[in-house]
Amino acid sequence: MSKRVAIIGAGPSGLAQLRAFQSAAQKGAEIPEIVCFEKQSNWGGLWNYTWRTGVDENGEPVHCSMYRYLWSNGPKEGLEFADYSFEEHFGKQIASYPPRAVLFDYIEGRVLKADVRKWIRFSSVIRWVEYLPESEEFEVTVHDMTEDRVYKERFDHVICASGHFSSPNVPEYPGFDQFNGRIVHAHDFRDAREFEGKDVLVVGSSYSAEDIGSQCWKYGAKTVTSCYRSAPMGFNWPDNWEEKPAMERVEGKTVHFSDGTTKDVDAIILCTGYKHYFPFLPDDLRLKTANRLASADLYKGVVYTHNPKMFYLGMQDQWFTFNMFDAQAWYVRDIILGRIEVPADKQVLMADVAEREAREEASDDVKYAINYQADYIKELIADTDYPSFNVDGATEAFMEWKKHKAKDIMAFRNNSYTSVITGTKAPVHHTPWKDALDDSMAAYLAN
Amino acid sequence: MSKRVAIIGAGPSGLAQLRAFQSAAQKGAEIPEIVCFEKQSNWGGLWNYTWRTGVDENGEPVHCSMYRYLWSNGPKEGLEFADYSFEEHFGKQIASYPPRAVLFDYIEGRVLKADVRKWIRFSSVIRWVEYLPESEEFEVTVHDMTEDRVYKERFDHVICASGHFSSPNVPEYPGFDQFNGRIVHAHDFRDAREFEGKDVLVVGSSYSAEDIGSQCWKYGAKTVTSCYRSAPMGFNWPDNWEEKPAMERVEGKTVHFSDGTTKDVDAIILCTGYKHYFPFLPDDLRLKTANRLASADLYKGVVYTHNPKMFYLGMQDQWFTFNMFDAQAWYVRDIILGRIEVPADKQVLMADVAEREAREEASDDVKYAINYQADYIKELIADTDYPSFNVDGATEAFMEWKKHKAKDIMAFRNNSYTSVITGTKAPVHHTPWKDALDDSMAAYLAN
Ligand SMILES: Cc1cc2nc3c(=O)[nH]c(=O)nc-3n(C[C@H](O)[C@H](O)[C@H](O)COP(=O)(O)OP(=O)(O)OC[C@H]3O[C@@H](n4cnc5c(N)ncnc54)[C@H](O)[C@@H]3O)c2cc1C
Ligand SMILES: Cc1cc2nc3c(=O)[nH]c(=O)nc-3n(C[C@H](O)[C@H](O)[C@H](O)COP(=O)(O)OP(=O)(O)OC[C@H]3O[C@@H](n4cnc5c(N)ncnc54)[C@H](O)[C@@H]3O)c2cc1C
Ligand SMILES: NC(=O)c1ccc[n+]([C@@H]2O[C@H](COP(=O)([O-])OP(=O)(O)OC[C@H]3O[C@@H](n4cnc5c(N)ncnc54)[C@H](OP(=O)(O)O)[C@@H]3O)[C@@H](O)[C@H]2O)c1
Ligand SMILES: NC(=O)c1ccc[n+]([C@@H]2O[C@H](COP(=O)([O-])OP(=O)(O)OC[C@H]3O[C@@H](n4cnc5c(N)ncnc54)[C@H](OP(=O)(O)O)[C@@H]3O)[C@@H](O)[C@H]2O)c1
Repeated sequence: MSKRVAIIGAGPSGLAQLRAFQSAAQKGAEIPEIVCFEKQSNWGGLWNYTWRTGVDENGEPVHCSMYRYLWSNGPKEGLEFADYSFEEHFGKQIASYPPRAVLFDYIEGRVLKADVRKWIRFSSVIRWVEYLPESEEFEVTVHDMTEDRVYKERFDHVICASGHFSSPNVPEYPGFDQFNGRIVHAHDFRDAREFEGKDVLVVGSSYSAEDIGSQCWKYGAKTVTSCYRSAPMGFNWPDNWEEKPAMERVEGKTVHFSDGTTKDVDAIILCTGYKHYFPFLPDDLRLKTANRLASADLYKGVVYTHNPKMFYLGMQDQWFTFNMFDAQAWYVRDIILGRIEVPADKQVLMADVAEREAREEASDDVKYAINYQADYIKELIADTDYPSFNVDGATEAFMEWKKHKAKDIMAFRNNSYTSVITGTKAPVHHTPWKDALDDSMAAYLAN
Repeated sequence: MSKRVAIIGAGPSGLAQLRAFQSAAQKGAEIPEIVCFEKQSNWGGLWNYTWRTGVDENGEPVHCSMYRYLWSNGPKEGLEFADYSFEEHFGKQIASYPPRAVLFDYIEGRVLKADVRKWIRFSSVIRWVEYLPESEEFEVTVHDMTEDRVYKERFDHVICASGHFSSPNVPEYPGFDQFNGRIVHAHDFRDAREFEGKDVLVVGSSYSAEDIGSQCWKYGAKTVTSCYRSAPMGFNWPDNWEEKPAMERVEGKTVHFSDGTTKDVDAIILCTGYKHYFPFLPDDLRLKTANRLASADLYKGVVYTHNPKMFYLGMQDQWFTFNMFDAQAWYVRDIILGRIEVPADKQVLMADVAEREAREEASDDVKYAINYQADYIKELIADTDYPSFNVDGATEAFMEWKKHKAKDIMAFRNNSYTSVITGTKAPVHHTPWKDALDDSMAAYLAN
């Protein structure tokens, strides 16, 4: 009997894994039986937008953390698939910071072409996974929500691609239980127009704080206040945006900051990050790691050191996304196909992790970090048949992007970059980001 | 070795079960080992208020569906514990519609007195339960969130008291994905002040719609619109409250109703009920029932017909609450202690369920339904040593309550009723409900 492989999740990472296997099959390889379990009724992971918040129609935590009017926060030239360019998909080159719907379409295009939807069981929640040492198999418990039926199946490998930006980290500050406005985590933020005319506080100083604050500003918030725990974002903010140090407590609608100042706000949006969360995994299979570039316990960033028959995709913090997931998926595929060997000695696996950690910790510099992740991609794709591409060129796009953000945070999305896959430069978008209120695909592609 | 019993949940039902066993032990009986697993860090179930919505600090769906300023929607004289009166707890008789904090205190009082907290493992999420036919045991998989550790234990019985008003039923209407205001289910509603000056739509025509609409009205919403699918609530609403037939679709901020009228709203609050939801149970143990008085598949409303070693508490729709949970808990205790015998023939169990269903379906009348549930309580307590009390007297309080609501929906909570446990009449509250903006325990008890 041929091997069976379970993939948990049909987001960009899980879909990369499906495409990786399909690509091998297309080239004549014999591949295992693949079953991808996806709890949502469609693919795309975080990119599959829903207006729902909290729990979904099945009572399961809503996966989507994206919101209306979200545009890519990095240039698309940094994430382009090496085997499926934007030009191939859209029939032309498009501007560099596509809205969510446009990127969803692009992600979908590749897997429609690869015809892998048949490998996915939708509305299927993984409830539990167990490793059975006697048979060296995994027993996977699945809740089929369409039939409201629970069943078990066995697999030789499990690839966990369930994402790590869906389970919010929600700190409590004194006074939250008495606050008379709305407190919401970025995960449940959906429509910036709701905050039109409002005084909004965004808590945190990373991508969500920057982008959700910018959304609120763009769609008419009266004021935006952001506050940081460690370091300010430090951009050239518009006049009605003020950056404050840490929040200390809330009294009524008044927020007190550590510098003694206060601000009355209508809403507090907690942009305080996410947790790796695997409610379906026992202790011996469950990854415990922070949101960092060198994930704990993952050899080559993908093989679970405590059980190398189990893999994780996309568990790192992400400068690179789609192309990194591809690099990982092709690598995992080749381990499963026996083309790449994982050292049998656990010490070797752990030493690999330790080396990655030490190297990550060697510098706090952002450019260093981007290059670190670029090197990781190069390392993985060197060992597989994933189309090699100019990773350093993609890195260049990121370096440009940093400069553009520093120059004008409300205008960086008006820039354009050159594709390392097709070599063509993206057009400048027809409308500056701050004036482009319609985020539909039709509006964006009307170039 | 003595028997082991697992209780899932330390809400009013689970706590009733703890008190039932403790009461038997106090009277000299030998009782099994009891372990109660509670996913929250404190007891009280729905009554344990949190400002959090969506998922909790552990990534688990938030259990609490209660909100600030919630007062009992029925008279406390209809739910008083027969073994622990309000007078015993508060040292005096108190008014009839206590706010949440007051009822939480009362629930807690009895179990503190019984000293059963030691039987509870807090921050412990039941992940999975399996019945092992060979050993006739249940294997329970628990995630201890404090230690982030998953473990398994075996039990002779499982009593599921996980509630059924926590997993929201969230319908989708055309246009929801484009609505520019806030869409929130009652489960995630927290503070009515947030809707001050706003045009609010509440969808549904049951208790949540009535009470959340009333809250918004009380705390200054500009207008309240409610809409029903089957039948209007039909109360004498205040001038700025309009009742409409079914919502058909939303366009921008405009809601279209089935009578062709429209209303522009800032927020849509879905008071569309809850689902029985047991993500930790396999097909052979999972109850599938609607929110009705005669739960499917439960002999005597508590014994799971497909596996009579498994019990469910509080799974019915609820006129009676705390006293009904007590009646059930004492009954289940006595089955486990061998004092009450469950018929061995499954047909007999199923006939019991069928009879209850037929009897419920015999009438649509509300008084009939209240009496039906009163009869159920009488039936159960007749077989145990739960202190017998005047159930018909409690029923009378409900009948009065119905009249008071019909007379003035914004004033029914200003009435008072007579305790069937102590025979004393409650004082009239010092402030009419609509003017009592402070819902703290101190404010309420200042009689
Ligand atoms: C607000 C936000 C904006 C972002 N914007 C960008 C951007 O502009 N550009 C960019 O490149 N990246 C962006 N990202 C990063 C994002 O992480 C990646 O683009 C990508 O979505 C990660 O893919 P993934 O497949 O690893 O995880 P996900 O996209 O999270 O997909 C995981 C999948 O697993 C499924 N799943 C989870 N649990 C189970 C279960 N128990 N059973 C079955 N299925 C399960 C989920 O339903 C989901 O479909 C953003 C992230 C966030 C939070
Ligand atoms: C908005 C609202 C208002 C209400 N107001 C009133 C009122 O005024 N008067 C009245 O009498 N009744 C009221 N009720 C009815 C309410 O159902 C009962 O009062 C009571 O809370 C039910 O008790 P329970 O123990 O059955 O369930 P719950 O109170 O829901 O408790 C269930 C417990 O199980 C725990 N649990 C769930 N899943 C797991 C798991 N997997 N692992 C471990 N633990 C778990 C939960 O954390 C929770 O503590 C109200 C209900 C709602 C929704
Ligand atoms: N396409 C887009 O436009 C877009 C928009 C949003 C997000 N994203 C993506 O989403 C992912 C997640 O980004 P993120 O910003 O949500 O998470 P993140 O990068 O992990 O940042 C979390 C932030 O929360 C702060 N924080 C954590 N705990 C806190 C506490 N208790 N009190 C105060 N602050 C606290 C952190 O501060 P410290 O620095 O002090 O730890 C940090 O600033 C990224 O991949 C990002 O690219 C993309
Ligand atoms: N203490 C308090 O003040 C208080 C406050 C709130 C709730 N509660 C308690 O909470 C419990 C739950 O009450 P609840 O009102 O939330 O739930 P519920 O009693 O089950 O009522 C659900 C309502 O939603 C409607 N509905 C369901 N699906 C719908 C759809 N797709 N479209 C439109 N309407 C839909 C139903 O209409 P149909 O009639 O057409 O089916 C019904 O009116 C009760 O025990 C109640 O006592 C107490």
